Parts: sequence; C-alpha cells; structure tokens
Amino acid sequence: MFEGPLQDLIDELSRLPGVGPKSAQRIAFHLLNVDPDDITRLQDALGAVRDGVRFCRICCNISRDEVCRICNDSGRDRGLICVVEEPKDIQVIERTGEFRGRYHVLGGALDPLANVGPRELTISTLLQRIGGVLDDRELADSTPDTPLLDDKPQIHEVILATDPNTEGEATASYLARLLQDFPDLVVSRLASGMPLGGDLEFVDELTLSRALSGRLPL
Amino acid sequence: MFEGPLQDLIDELSRLPGVGPKSAQRIAFHLLNVDPDDITRLQDALGAVRDGVRFCRICCNISRDEVCRICNDSGRDRGLICVVEEPKDIQVIERTGEFRGRYHVLGGALDPLANVGPRELTISTLLQRIGGVLDDRELADSTPDTPLLDDKPQIHEVILATDPNTEGEATASYLARLLQDFPDLVVSRLASGMPLGGDLEFVDELTLSRALSGRLPL
Repeated sequence: MFEGPLQDLIDELSRLPGVGPKSAQRIAFHLLNVDPDDITRLQDALGAVRDGVRFCRICCNISRDEVCRICNDSGRDRGLICVVEEPKDIQVIERTGEFRGRYHVLGGALDPLANVGPRELTISTLLQRIGGVLDDRELADSTPDTPLLDDKPQIHEVILATDPNTEGEATASYLARLLQDFPDLVVSRLASGMPLGGDLEFVDELTLSRALSGRLPL
Repeated sequence: MFEGPLQDLIDELSRLPGVGPKSAQRIAFHLLNVDPDDITRLQDALGAVRDGVRFCRICCNISRDEVCRICNDSGRDRGLICVVEEPKDIQVIERTGEFRGRYHVLGGALDPLANVGPRELTISTLLQRIGGVLDDRELADSTPDTPLLDDKPQIHEVILATDPNTEGEATASYLARLLQDFPDLVVSRLASGMPLGGDLEFVDELTLSRALSGRLPL
C-alpha cells in the first residue's frame, strides 16, 4: 500500500473493468512521470463522457452531432435497417464492408432477470422509423428525444443482428413478432452455423445442429 | 471508430501502459454506464497526482506527510538502510516481513543511454543520510528539499537492493564505490541465484553461474 493521492488513484483505477491492482499500480506510476497536460486531457475526456454523450436521433448510435455519420451518408440504402444491441456491434459489421444500409442500436437485449424489458430498449424508436403506430400501453419511448422523421424513407428490410445468445435470440424473436404486422417488410436474422476457419471437431453441439438445420443446397 | 467524446476517451485511455484499443473501448463503454460520481472521483484522483505527490524528506519514498510511515516507525532499525530503485520495490521487500530497517528510494537506476546520471537520482540525499560530505562538483542534490537531519542516526549498514539487471548492477557498483569511503559502514548486496520453487532445467546460464560462484557451505 502506498500513501496519499497515489494510492487513491490506484484504488480508482482498480475499479475499471480489466484493470487489476498490478495494472492500476503500473498506470499510476506511469502517470506520475507524464506531462501534466496528458493527465488534464484524460480528465477532460472523462468529463466529456460523464457530462453526456449524444445519441443519433435516427439510429440511437453514439454520435458527435444530432444525426450520426452513418445516417448522414447519402450513399447508403435508407430502406435497409440492421438492428444491433450495442454501438460497438456496428463497428464489427462495418468492418465486413458488406452492409450498405443503416443501423438501429437497441441499447441492449431483453433480459427480464436484469430488469431489461422492451421499455429499456429503443424498440419504440425502431417502430417509429418503420412507421408502426405506437401502442403506448405496451411500449413507451425510452429515448428522451423523438426521432427525426421529416424525410421518412420506406423501410423494406430489417436485419436482426442481435447476439446469438439467450437474450439476443429472445430479443430477435420479440422483434420478429412485432414486425410481422408490417405486410411489405422483410424481417431477416443473421445466419447461424459453423464459423469459417473453424474445425468440425471443436464446434459445439448447438452450433452444429443449427448449421445442420440451416444447411444450404449447392 | 466512434464519434465525439467517447472516441476521445478511448484515444486517451489507449495511451496508458497495458491498455490496448480493445481494453480502452471496454473501459469507455463501462464509464458510459457508471454513476457520474465515480467518474468525478477518478478525475479528482488524477488531478491530485498531477498536482504533485509528496516525497518523504528522509527516504524519498512517496508519502502523505513530510516524513513517510516507514521512516516514522520508531520500531525500525534506523541504522540500517535498504536502497531501492522505485517506491514499488519497497512493497515487495515489506511483503517478505524480513526487513526491519528503513529504505532509500533512488528514483531509478543509472542509465547513461537514457540520460540518467547520478544527479538524476537521490544519491546525494543518501550520502547526506549516511553523513558523507557532498562534493558538489561531482554530485548535486536532485531532490528539491534537503533531508531532515535533526536527529541523525548512525548508519551501520546499507543494503543495495537495486534490480539485478545492467542498470541496477551498475548503480550498485557505483554506490559501493562511493560508500567504501565510510570506514565503519557495511555495504551489502542482495544475493543472486536460483529462484526458490524454480527448476534447474529452466534457469538461464547467467543466473546459474551466479548461483555457482555464490555457493554457500552447508
């Protein structure tokens, strides 16, 4: 144990995810020797995040402006929405270079045990984007701002790209049920199956049974 | 890449040692969801470290007060000094529970390639503690405050516990040469040899040759 401010800093750093006492100590000693301006910049960055990060009024992604970079991109198909759980999921899909539509960030997945219901997610915003009438008894908008609907595009497909785990699958099923009321809307789900570069021997039973039932004719 | 304050925070966090882009992203998203007070506390801890950490006027260890906890401990042998490179080395030695003297923190090791000479370390403070006359042409005090020498104890032994690497060994040799001028002072060095619990097969040649030359009669 050290004394005074350094130990306080080590204690605070240790509370961050993935930072143990040893890493916290290493970071704290590093900060003892850096330019004070570097620490001030880190403080300011923390303050900016604490004082509020903006969310895109269309897709609920983290954004610098009212509408995020992706929603502002006129080269993208505005009628195609990929629904993801978290902003970081967008990065992963963007890296494939295969998707040229817009996104919708739910802000999580349905998880009744953790008290995350439809109201905690941005499902009502999604329905408004597609053009569904909001049943306020069932859902309430969890985002403070109403979405920008001035130049409402016709949505033709919604891809459900929630995580392939219990909560993600439940969320996808829930959304699929809600969205089946829209007659001309195609609702799809990311394919499940064998990961490329994998080995049949090491694939778990659940994934393999999904791959079997979802087999494609060649 | 995210937009706005969140990306700024990820960038700043990525500059910390041991924190890669993935960890920085994880920490930043974690901070999005924590109590704002937690972020404020982290900011304050950073500010306190930036605005100056105090060093003990006797041993140059990090301290809350003018004299650190260890130097204030009257149960310790004030005539025995263990010289270490960094404050964190004190923790390691304290954990052994074997050492009941005081410490002296050099603030690093001699490293001419990195422009760390005797003036950059607290060697002159160490000499003052032992009672040596300071030759100002050779050394200048690198610590801003003069050490507390009111109740000057008679130092009988100095243990050189610098790291067993090139810089640490060079520093130990340099200090041993300086300290040989004190007639009644015992200067010792931590033993080198096989780590306990190790395996002879995996010990490197240098360590093994040290262990051989330093063999003890049973």
